[in-house]
Amino acid sequence: MPVGSAHDPRGQEGAAGVLEEWLYKGAGGRDARGLQDAFDDLGVRRSGGVGPEATRFGASGLTADLGAALALVADVVARPALPTHELPVLLDLARQDLEGLEDSPPDLLAAEARALGFPRVPGDDRAGYAHPASGTPEGLEALGAAGLRAHLERYGQAGSVLGLVADLEPQAAHDLAARTFAGWRVGEDRPVPALFRRGGRLHLPHPGGEQTHLSLSAPGVSPRSADWLPWQLALSALSGGGSSRLFVAVREERGLAYAVSASPLVLGGEGFLSAYAGSTPGRAPETLAVMLAELERLPGGLGAEEFRRAHTGLSTGVVFGAQSLRGRAHALTRDLALFGQVRSVRGLRAQIDALTLEEVNAFLARYRPALEATVVTLGPGDTFALPPAAQPQAAQGVGA
Amino acid sequence: MPVGSAHDPRGQEGAAGVLEEWLYKGAGGRDARGLQDAFDDLGVRRSGGVGPEATRFGASGLTADLGAALALVADVVARPALPTHELPVLLDLARQDLEGLEDSPPDLLAAEARALGFPRVPGDDRAGYAHPASGTPEGLEALGAAGLRAHLERYGQAGSVLGLVADLEPQAAHDLAARTFAGWRVGEDRPVPALFRRGGRLHLPHPGGEQTHLSLSAPGVSPRSADWLPWQLALSALSGGGSSRLFVAVREERGLAYAVSASPLVLGGEGFLSAYAGSTPGRAPETLAVMLAELERLPGGLGAEEFRRAHTGLSTGVVFGAQSLRGRAHALTRDLALFGQVRSVRGLRAQIDALTLEEVNAFLARYRPALEATVVTLGPGDTFALPPAAQPQAAQGVGA
Repeated sequence: MPVGSAHDPRGQEGAAGVLEEWLYKGAGGRDARGLQDAFDDLGVRRSGGVGPEATRFGASGLTADLGAALALVADVVARPALPTHELPVLLDLARQDLEGLEDSPPDLLAAEARALGFPRVPGDDRAGYAHPASGTPEGLEALGAAGLRAHLERYGQAGSVLGLVADLEPQAAHDLAARTFAGWRVGEDRPVPALFRRGGRLHLPHPGGEQTHLSLSAPGVSPRSADWLPWQLALSALSGGGSSRLFVAVREERGLAYAVSASPLVLGGEGFLSAYAGSTPGRAPETLAVMLAELERLPGGLGAEEFRRAHTGLSTGVVFGAQSLRGRAHALTRDLALFGQVRSVRGLRAQIDALTLEEVNAFLARYRPALEATVVTLGPGDTFALPPAAQPQAAQGVGA
Repeated sequence: MPVGSAHDPRGQEGAAGVLEEWLYKGAGGRDARGLQDAFDDLGVRRSGGVGPEATRFGASGLTADLGAALALVADVVARPALPTHELPVLLDLARQDLEGLEDSPPDLLAAEARALGFPRVPGDDRAGYAHPASGTPEGLEALGAAGLRAHLERYGQAGSVLGLVADLEPQAAHDLAARTFAGWRVGEDRPVPALFRRGGRLHLPHPGGEQTHLSLSAPGVSPRSADWLPWQLALSALSGGGSSRLFVAVREERGLAYAVSASPLVLGGEGFLSAYAGSTPGRAPETLAVMLAELERLPGGLGAEEFRRAHTGLSTGVVFGAQSLRGRAHALTRDLALFGQVRSVRGLRAQIDALTLEEVNAFLARYRPALEATVVTLGPGDTFALPPAAQPQAAQGVGA
């Protein structure tokens, strides 16, 4: 469903997270215990959760139980009981979850990097990407039954995607879904724009921590752009396998960090590059310098051997990703939401096979993520000697 | 391969971890870069790592590349280059990994709980279960090329298990594996006994932490015992789904902890119950009391409804676990190592289907994990009011 933590009403940060838990506190005429029992009676394994742009409800079970399991999911999203007396415990658990973030430096860093890189959209009544799914202490404080019930009105058929992997004829699957979700409200499909703050710099002191954690965000490519696959291939060369550029430069050649990676992040229909490394406080500055240097040399393009390996990695990755049925169901949903269509394994591999070195290097010649990167560090020291942003005019008003 | 961190020579804690990384620094006549390139040329995705009892090497790739991928894995384990000049960087990364443990309270707690619950076996020349796979600062300090090369002599065919999932006739698979690993040394298959310390109590102060993390270990059932499946079913009732006892008592009814779980742990051929919760410092004592109370009431047995749900959960879980080919390869290897045979999905489901409530309750009437539980807590306070162990004579010599 296309309502995530970014859609939380301003001042009610945490609404989507608490609402997702509340939905399971009884539905379709069952109380909380009865609903849990009904899922467990079918042996259905639930998954999902609240992301920045969407809330996902996943269920895995045996084919014989498909109709009953789907009906339970429909009860949860369309006919929840939302009992007021359950709210205090849920708010309390949400506060605990939020406090737990403080004990996990990489997660805390990711939340702070999101907040610096994707500030609230001026004039928008939604809180946007600047807070984690578990909310903020003030937001949780402000949440109440009436506000949450009103927020739920945004959840409905509009923009929702159902991915179903089962031994079933397509028409029968369609009829089952249509019947099960009939009458569900329309809801809202109103994406939150992701306005990236270029050249941001921030250090978060983490007294008592042993490591320094680095986060780097930069513009990337939209999933609907023709450059999407060339960008994916470049990311595979940058951070795909043991011979990828970041791994070799940071870890293999210099031993600067135990973990280093770069991956695509899609927010508001746009793609962004998100890189991470965990290092020692003493080596963190060099780690960051090497990461930025690797981004800076991307416009020089890939070599033929390097292209071939990244190409193989990307192509086989498509096959691995389609292996698990649960993964496939998730991919169907994600494909429709991000690409507007389902990408078949065969079709996607054919597209990747057709990519040429020239095409990828022509894209890279135009791709300058280092210039616009926003960097957030978290570590034991009070300060971190962050390199200045290449475009100082873009960094105004950004934390030190 | 049946050599894990527990087999690290005493005083060389971290040997298996560093050795695993070193093996990838060139093999079969290739240097480090050449080996990485060879894996990436095939698009092979590596997995695995060092566990307490075994080191796992996993590779996923396309069927057409099976022979070449298997040959690479054989080169790594049987014909590594082990270049001395690569060691300093590897030892340095291992130290970083170990320091990173300090920044992750749940992982730190798990390591300390292992150390308290499974002390070194007197007279054994192996370090045992009392240290994490990344070693100890002193152990890493003592590691050198000669000692690691000598340690590698323990790795070989004895006790090693190859799990292979591919579109291939069994005889052809057998011949391929025999040919590829021909001439590999015999090695050692010498399990490290897991001597559980009952009734241990320890609190680890974690200044600046927001949460208190609780770990509880207790005796369980050996994988080769007839009680294994009744125990698994009881664990499913205790911590399997939304209606499981721990989840309901700790989280749903009292809101004491965001996360609470119990799962089986197999060490030295024996099974143990391992439970975890993360709570606030103020609620941690009640959380622990509720967890212990749930263990104490296990001998009273399951109700009929509860049995049916746990039964369904266990049975469908077997189906889910067999979905991914990578997961299936891992399961084959684990089955042979722990159960001495491969358990087919169909056979295992039939065994589960045959379980009766009477059988499970007869087992539970004899099962008293609360009496012998060892508890470790980690949180911001200097002390934690740990309940006394039920068998004080077993707790002697154990930290406060």
